[in-house]
Amino acid sequence: MLEELKTEIYWANMMLKEYNLVVLTWGNVSGIDKNREYVVIKPSGVDYDKLKPENMAVVNMRGEVIEGDLKPSSDTFTHLELYKAYKEISGVCHTHSLYATSFAQSYIYKNINPLGTTHADYFDGAIPVTRIMKPKEIKNDYEKNTGLVIIETLKKIKKSPSQMPAVLVRSHGPFTFGKNAEESVEHSIILENIAHLAFNTKILTIVGYSGGNMQNELLRKHFDRKHGENAYYGQGGK
Amino acid sequence: MLEELKTEIYWANMMLKEYNLVVLTWGNVSGIDKNREYVVIKPSGVDYDKLKPENMAVVNMRGEVIEGDLKPSSDTFTHLELYKAYKEISGVCHTHSLYATSFAQSYIYKNINPLGTTHADYFDGAIPVTRIMKPKEIKNDYEKNTGLVIIETLKKIKKSPSQMPAVLVRSHGPFTFGKNAEESVEHSIILENIAHLAFNTKILTIVGYSGGNMQNELLRKHFDRKHGENAYYGQGGK
Amino acid sequence: MLEELKTEIYWANMMLKEYNLVVLTWGNVSGIDKNREYVVIKPSGVDYDKLKPENMAVVNMRGEVIEGDLKPSSDTFTHLELYKAYKEISGVCHTHSLYATSFAQSYIYKNINPLGTTHADYFDGAIPVTRIMKPKEIKNDYEKNTGLVIIETLKKIKKSPSQMPAVLVRSHGPFTFGKNAEESVEHSIILENIAHLAFNTKILTIVGYSGGNMQNELLRKHFDRKHGENAYYGQGGK
Amino acid sequence: MLEELKTEIYWANMMLKEYNLVVLTWGNVSGIDKNREYVVIKPSGVDYDKLKPENMAVVNMRGEVIEGDLKPSSDTFTHLELYKAYKEISGVCHTHSLYATSFAQSYIYKNINPLGTTHADYFDGAIPVTRIMKPKEIKNDYEKNTGLVIIETLKKIKKSPSQMPAVLVRSHGPFTFGKNAEESVEHSIILENIAHLAFNTKILTIVGYSGGNMQNELLRKHFDRKHGENAYYGQGGK
Repeated sequence: MLEELKTEIYWANMMLKEYNLVVLTWGNVSGIDKNREYVVIKPSGVDYDKLKPENMAVVNMRGEVIEGDLKPSSDTFTHLELYKAYKEISGVCHTHSLYATSFAQSYIYKNINPLGTTHADYFDGAIPVTRIMKPKEIKNDYEKNTGLVIIETLKKIKKSPSQMPAVLVRSHGPFTFGKNAEESVEHSIILENIAHLAFNTKILTIVGYSGGNMQNELLRKHFDRKHGENAYYGQGGK
Repeated sequence: MLEELKTEIYWANMMLKEYNLVVLTWGNVSGIDKNREYVVIKPSGVDYDKLKPENMAVVNMRGEVIEGDLKPSSDTFTHLELYKAYKEISGVCHTHSLYATSFAQSYIYKNINPLGTTHADYFDGAIPVTRIMKPKEIKNDYEKNTGLVIIETLKKIKKSPSQMPAVLVRSHGPFTFGKNAEESVEHSIILENIAHLAFNTKILTIVGYSGGNMQNELLRKHFDRKHGENAYYGQGGK
Repeated sequence: MLEELKTEIYWANMMLKEYNLVVLTWGNVSGIDKNREYVVIKPSGVDYDKLKPENMAVVNMRGEVIEGDLKPSSDTFTHLELYKAYKEISGVCHTHSLYATSFAQSYIYKNINPLGTTHADYFDGAIPVTRIMKPKEIKNDYEKNTGLVIIETLKKIKKSPSQMPAVLVRSHGPFTFGKNAEESVEHSIILENIAHLAFNTKILTIVGYSGGNMQNELLRKHFDRKHGENAYYGQGGK
Repeated sequence: MLEELKTEIYWANMMLKEYNLVVLTWGNVSGIDKNREYVVIKPSGVDYDKLKPENMAVVNMRGEVIEGDLKPSSDTFTHLELYKAYKEISGVCHTHSLYATSFAQSYIYKNINPLGTTHADYFDGAIPVTRIMKPKEIKNDYEKNTGLVIIETLKKIKKSPSQMPAVLVRSHGPFTFGKNAEESVEHSIILENIAHLAFNTKILTIVGYSGGNMQNELLRKHFDRKHGENAYYGQGGK
């Protein structure tokens, strides 16, 4: 059953590798069927090289495995909570991508605030980090509670997952959403890019105009030996 | 019509992907025909994998689509203003490349000042960032006004686009120019490199000589086990 | 003899190149046979392109070459000490990978402390850096003493190599362990990733909320031209 | 003439591209023949894709072109001075590689001081940056004077080019030396790696132990769900 969706989820998972969002067996992408009865998701701890469309795991909305021999991703219950809460999303992606995860790890950050149009093209405001989870939320039903804290976070900033298709889980990493699995992965790719831009921008703002200027004689020499009247760089004569 | 130019613009756009200046469908390159009547530009929001020479968009100098089924890049009106202002350029390139965009996003920077000969080989002085655009410039004719603020910026520093073939649009990203599309992309490649060099240099100048030295005994041991009289690293006997 | 193990060690060494943990001839991986009598290890200073399963070096537990024409890695005696001390490990990997080595080089760091779940998925606490080696430990039996200082470090933090499968040697670089050679390399891959995350996180915590926000008008313009009611980015009409 | 040397120099130049030390037409490698009468060097401003062994430029020790239609690298006179000064080197390499050049650009640095064994494996002490060149040294015979200032720098630190096979030219970039062209390129690869390590180490030393620790409950949860008694990550049952 759900062969088409399995193929779609297979390719969405393979994008994680192609775009360098994961190493080894990390990360997982899922999609939900049209009737919102079944979720197809990457099996737990399997090498990307050994993944095939047919070994994607199929679970029902209670997380019970419906098809296949492999256990689903250990993060499956997080994905399920998100599908239950938001009819508008049919794809969810989770990675530990480098720059997004760095923001999630830095305890002083409550969000990645918008610094430029690359951010504004996809995210309607600051990308939030969840609160710290409580010891009892970690102890029991940890993965389900991870989903609930993501939902709580979007509620708090009064955004739908279409307006804010990414949330960073504190001390953990990003979850992104989409109208299908591929779009959820695209939002992870873009999030990583924006997080890297924000990382650089914040550093530049601190280091400021340190560095001085080069000597003007040296600037003139190099610009002119390539572009001046008596240029002698390259093969073109003058 | 303009088949040769379309092929040229196709390849110039594909360079953006090859040189890692863009992700997904981002970025755009254009070129103008010899009579300066038509501009060929990347279609809006199309995957690089699906681009072909024949689906490049052709517009006239009023931005009207002359040929093709696909809408031109949403930044088309920015490109048009630049061609109208400067007879010496026949190619324009726009990316959100990582380091150049980081400088554009950091509000304290008015330019990337020249720090070494890599910069001086291509840019005759500091690479400027535009002023913030006014709310009314953003509200109406935003893309056209983006072109105008680039031109205003070059005027202010009294440079032609040959002397200064790059301008960073504040909170947005770089536009670069060339005597053809390929050269405009080369200037984006070089700009990104120079921006990365400047980023690193400014950091080094702040962190200074932190780090101390290693123990001298350890330095001697490692240099000598490879290069000393009794070297025992590698397969060469002594 | 040990043909199967040689092939395994060959492939484990080639992973160092594939995952960008080494340049040129740097790095080495070893494995021990089931009876713990022989260790197979990369030959010293040989190009990865020229490595073959048959030229892996075989040594006994006193470090004497048992088979092959090539000298074993100059770090062989470090590997031997680790195998002697820990029955639970059958693979050891050594690299100068960029971020892990940076922590080993920064004299103020006694460890990489745990900052997120990526770390916690593999390492049961802070990843330790060894103490500085004494001049006499460097002068004689340097490689053997490097092994001993790693063992001393794990003892001090009261962890087994399964709980803490990585130690950073001060001013040098990481050694990682595994139940076989491949797992020891995986731990090097993961360690490098965690070290990069920690590097970024510490920087973010220092630079903090520098960077301000972009103008709200510009955020609205860009989000709405792609996702608003009158969106005009891309090929989809509204 | 010198066909073998031309092939060798061709391949040494192509290594610059393979190891990401250059973009576009940047960088150049040369070698000198056994009689030390002729130097073979990359032609000026030619794409790496279009280089062939037969279009390497051949010059005599006065810099006059002896063979070939293409102009030699504009840095040829720098290479010549180095060959004249040091009989022990037969290869010279010049790049604008990112991290090495960043140190050359940061005016407060007089060298890259040794911070770990990666450095000590190849460089016998701190890697020096030249002094600023005088306006008259820049104005006339600039490239020759660049060679002379490199030699002056090695003299000042009392090292031979075998002990210190790299010098950073202030506000410009690195020159490296070797007993042949390939070794000079290897020294550029290693220098870039060491410069990146030093860059990171200095940053870590400044940012220090910022970042705090993650919650202990979360560390226990993640380590134990993978490695504890009731582990449920991955496909292995317990």
